[in-house]
Amino acid sequence: MTDSPSMSEVLKDCPKNWGRWGEDDEVGALNFLTAEEVLRGVQHVKQGKVFPVQLKMGDPNGDPVWPGRRAAERLMVIDEGNWIGGSAPEFPGGLHYADDFITAFLQGSTQYDALGHVWYDGEIYNGYDAKTTIGGLKKASVLPIAEKGIVGRGVLLDMARYRGKDRLEKGETFTHEDLEACAEKQGITIEKHDIILIRTGFLGSFHEDGPVKFYDGFNEPGLTFSKELVEWFHEREIPNLVTDTIANETTYEPDTGVALPLHCALMRNLGVTFTEICDLEALAEDCASDNQYAFLYAAAPLKIVEGTGAPVNPIVVK
Amino acid sequence: MTDSPSMSEVLKDCPKNWGRWGEDDEVGALNFLTAEEVLRGVQHVKQGKVFPVQLKMGDPNGDPVWPGRRAAERLMVIDEGNWIGGSAPEFPGGLHYADDFITAFLQGSTQYDALGHVWYDGEIYNGYDAKTTIGGLKKASVLPIAEKGIVGRGVLLDMARYRGKDRLEKGETFTHEDLEACAEKQGITIEKHDIILIRTGFLGSFHEDGPVKFYDGFNEPGLTFSKELVEWFHEREIPNLVTDTIANETTYEPDTGVALPLHCALMRNLGVTFTEICDLEALAEDCASDNQYAFLYAAAPLKIVEGTGAPVNPIVVK
Amino acid sequence: MTDSPSMSEVLKDCPKNWGRWGEDDEVGALNFLTAEEVLRGVQHVKQGKVFPVQLKMGDPNGDPVWPGRRAAERLMVIDEGNWIGGSAPEFPGGLHYADDFITAFLQGSTQYDALGHVWYDGEIYNGYDAKTTIGGLKKASVLPIAEKGIVGRGVLLDMARYRGKDRLEKGETFTHEDLEACAEKQGITIEKHDIILIRTGFLGSFHEDGPVKFYDGFNEPGLTFSKELVEWFHEREIPNLVTDTIANETTYEPDTGVALPLHCALMRNLGVTFTEICDLEALAEDCASDNQYAFLYAAAPLKIVEGTGAPVNPIVVK
Amino acid sequence: MTDSPSMSEVLKDCPKNWGRWGEDDEVGALNFLTAEEVLRGVQHVKQGKVFPVQLKMGDPNGDPVWPGRRAAERLMVIDEGNWIGGSAPEFPGGLHYADDFITAFLQGSTQYDALGHVWYDGEIYNGYDAKTTIGGLKKASVLPIAEKGIVGRGVLLDMARYRGKDRLEKGETFTHEDLEACAEKQGITIEKHDIILIRTGFLGSFHEDGPVKFYDGFNEPGLTFSKELVEWFHEREIPNLVTDTIANETTYEPDTGVALPLHCALMRNLGVTFTEICDLEALAEDCASDNQYAFLYAAAPLKIVEGTGAPVNPIVVK
Repeated sequence: MTDSPSMSEVLKDCPKNWGRWGEDDEVGALNFLTAEEVLRGVQHVKQGKVFPVQLKMGDPNGDPVWPGRRAAERLMVIDEGNWIGGSAPEFPGGLHYADDFITAFLQGSTQYDALGHVWYDGEIYNGYDAKTTIGGLKKASVLPIAEKGIVGRGVLLDMARYRGKDRLEKGETFTHEDLEACAEKQGITIEKHDIILIRTGFLGSFHEDGPVKFYDGFNEPGLTFSKELVEWFHEREIPNLVTDTIANETTYEPDTGVALPLHCALMRNLGVTFTEICDLEALAEDCASDNQYAFLYAAAPLKIVEGTGAPVNPIVVK
Repeated sequence: MTDSPSMSEVLKDCPKNWGRWGEDDEVGALNFLTAEEVLRGVQHVKQGKVFPVQLKMGDPNGDPVWPGRRAAERLMVIDEGNWIGGSAPEFPGGLHYADDFITAFLQGSTQYDALGHVWYDGEIYNGYDAKTTIGGLKKASVLPIAEKGIVGRGVLLDMARYRGKDRLEKGETFTHEDLEACAEKQGITIEKHDIILIRTGFLGSFHEDGPVKFYDGFNEPGLTFSKELVEWFHEREIPNLVTDTIANETTYEPDTGVALPLHCALMRNLGVTFTEICDLEALAEDCASDNQYAFLYAAAPLKIVEGTGAPVNPIVVK
Repeated sequence: MTDSPSMSEVLKDCPKNWGRWGEDDEVGALNFLTAEEVLRGVQHVKQGKVFPVQLKMGDPNGDPVWPGRRAAERLMVIDEGNWIGGSAPEFPGGLHYADDFITAFLQGSTQYDALGHVWYDGEIYNGYDAKTTIGGLKKASVLPIAEKGIVGRGVLLDMARYRGKDRLEKGETFTHEDLEACAEKQGITIEKHDIILIRTGFLGSFHEDGPVKFYDGFNEPGLTFSKELVEWFHEREIPNLVTDTIANETTYEPDTGVALPLHCALMRNLGVTFTEICDLEALAEDCASDNQYAFLYAAAPLKIVEGTGAPVNPIVVK
Repeated sequence: MTDSPSMSEVLKDCPKNWGRWGEDDEVGALNFLTAEEVLRGVQHVKQGKVFPVQLKMGDPNGDPVWPGRRAAERLMVIDEGNWIGGSAPEFPGGLHYADDFITAFLQGSTQYDALGHVWYDGEIYNGYDAKTTIGGLKKASVLPIAEKGIVGRGVLLDMARYRGKDRLEKGETFTHEDLEACAEKQGITIEKHDIILIRTGFLGSFHEDGPVKFYDGFNEPGLTFSKELVEWFHEREIPNLVTDTIANETTYEPDTGVALPLHCALMRNLGVTFTEICDLEALAEDCASDNQYAFLYAAAPLKIVEGTGAPVNPIVVK
């Protein structure tokens, strides 16, 4: 750990979008999603197919989460049992109902990260003081993202299929050039302002191999840092990066050991929103069969005041 | 209460959709939302405007909820304070982050009801035994709804504006004929399979009048039961009813005092999904100004296994 | 608020016990409770009567808590309903069971405050940096108190009865001289190292008057600050102050408007532990009838790691 | 599982205390703890030593719990960080404070079981209908236990030390005869109405071996069922069984494979209260050194309305 360079050293030559949308901006690269981009996205609805891509919450077999978090917990408040047991309220007419309750990490299921979720050097996205995160995000929380909504053209890059695998391995990396090559093989072009969805298949290993193996030497596959990759995102003005991994990038940058540099380079510095822990299996299967890899993507996380992130069930419409 | 007729008496001549989509069906009238309906909805995207219509969760001034529930509670797990205090983890490179946690009633914010959320006479939607609700909905939970997603043509019926009010009064009712008249005044036709969004403005009274007054003699404005109204929903094959009230109908049917008969007539018997506690203010304002009251509606609640309902931030695209 | 003097000004001439038990001490005046004091307490067990003095948690009529907190919430995990509904586990032999769950503020029921619960000027009890509170109390948490336990002689001072009232009024104050006078009238002497229990009867107003009135102009009755009162506690080496109010002292010091100065003077500076929100009604009734106001007091809050406080059900044995 | 006899078969010749203390009784064998027993307990306070025997809650290395439950979770509400970050309330005088929050299984730490916690054949302790458990224990909850308090003579039986081990093995069993032999070796007699504390040392394996090994083939050491053992408890009128294991008996009865028959025989049928997950290490060490194995035991779980159990920090005074 002591041998790793500091984040600011690693990212010293990388671009930033701070101030680009005003000093009060809290949604960053989502600003690229103008009305025109919404209309562009809509043009890709060809068949009327709908794919909600959230991963299930509260799977009886467990939910994969970042080490130290835990899966959402659903608890019953009332159900038919209460009427059987005589402890239920009476309503005129005799209606019965079921009610439940949840405790959850806001980052513990498919979720949008707030732009202020991750930082270094005392400043979050757009230069807000990191102390504004204390007790809740006063700046760059998930709320403005949820109030804007994310609608545009999405493209699926099926990296697992591209590499001929069911799923990428622990720590397996890829670059923007791999994304381009994958797109080319799929017969599409990654356009400016596209919402990028990357499938690694990795979360499947949680259920296939079991949690003990999944968390042992935890190191997700994913994009890996380079200055060129950051510039690629910057030039293409990518508003939103969506993956089926917990943290949207390989956990530890292989060369330096630095943890999650793309959270810093893309989210904190460029204002790219991150959508994590998606379930892209059914969508990928469908894209492979009809060869339509571009579509309308529509998502809006929960409007949680001051949230560091919020659960979401993004919708792909083809 | 003892004077109220039973729900089965009240609804005895009303239609049912049980079995219509097979004995295993769990999404009811959402089955009307075929690929054709998705494509029909998309045709109403004219301008590229996006309106996420969830009501904020965790408003510092409080969230309106059904009596007996409480607002979602957000708690901090880690933030910049932990680094200042020396109790934070160290990551190679020095990344800092903020993480938080929520406890919430699944029915305590903008949410989709599962079709099994409400019942009478020991059977939920499609005839499943009400005992399947015990400990979690084994049948007709919110999960199949979340896995299908709801995409189609939505229409806003601004009942408050139609009646020349900022918001409807406690207990103020309206019927399907009022909906038709409102639509006509707005210059649109309610078509078969439309997702109906009704604005009453009522939740505004929570913040304007304060919680004590809001809950005193709690009785929401809304649709009120009649056999004709149920048939109207049935004939139009409405898949989804969306309102800006907590329970989508007037709380107590004025003639009989029966509580929430439309939950039973529409949700349990016809399989119409209910979306509650929306914030339709900005959308209504916009519709009044551009006179476009029909649009693409896209929503997918969280995929909560066995949930009685799940939070959602529905998206309207015009 | 701007007119109030600062806490350090208010307390500038008051005594402190910092360092008295070493620079690593975390239990303060509980150090006075030596083995001798335990034996002294035991001598007051005369009749074999037992009074657990916690206030109920999860009263269906509500629990009184400090404004901004809420009552504990109990949720069911499993019960006989799950066996009726067919969703329960099977154990060899056929055992059934009930299990439940709680969400609670650690300061939201009868509880011991950690000595680090309250502070001013950047330092908590014993001079530890207030930044050690961030994310959990690294110093002077409730854990060392819970690991030590509190056993000694307790005395009940029934201030309500002394003043001929069912309960003291909002904002009604009393002093150490009133405590002495009350003790005298009760026929006991407050001795060195006594655990002092003060009954005001105030929490009864929560249920009698209702929450709206209870919280309106919230200002608890209780001890009020003076330098002499602090010295009185200091000289008597009182280890623990136990009351039937939420915060053990009048909320706002009448002369200056300063909030909770005794938390600072007694807890932070002298290391006196505070036990709050007790239910002393049955005990007081009994003491009035048998005239035994001194007894064995035995309490140990939950051993919650880094807790700011912890629930407790203290035991009085007469 | 199908080969195991039913609980009623297993226990068919065992004694019951139903009705013994009236048809409304909810505290069972705690009725044996009369004022005389309190006074008998007090006589064993010889030295003024105090041992709170709860196991820590929220140990950073994890807490051992029954499979399917989880450890308590402490979350921060406010601390000095909030003042540094500018998001804290201002009080006249300038007081700062720390506040926190917990989510926990009521059976997930040192706890008293309610007598209605476990049952078979549709009836809980005293013959109450098992349907009274639905949604919360309407009968024989932990509340009456918490309101009574448990004070009497306790005796430690250090089975691990007796067998010359640091801790008993998985599935290792012992009987009432072993308890007698252990007592004899320790130089004490188990008397009528004694509160029995049994040390196995087993929970130490959670931290020593790690959770994976601890839960693998989960089968606690402990007392094992025989009709004679149940009669032994019955004749000695034992009010309370306290152990340092999660479930106070060996998990699976070796002969029949039946799970937790003593919960049924002792708790449900005889009304013996169970106190689980204690930390008896320091107490045992001390008893071994001063050879005083009998003492005052004083405990009162939290007064949680309708609770299936409640956390507690029992106090041993020698």
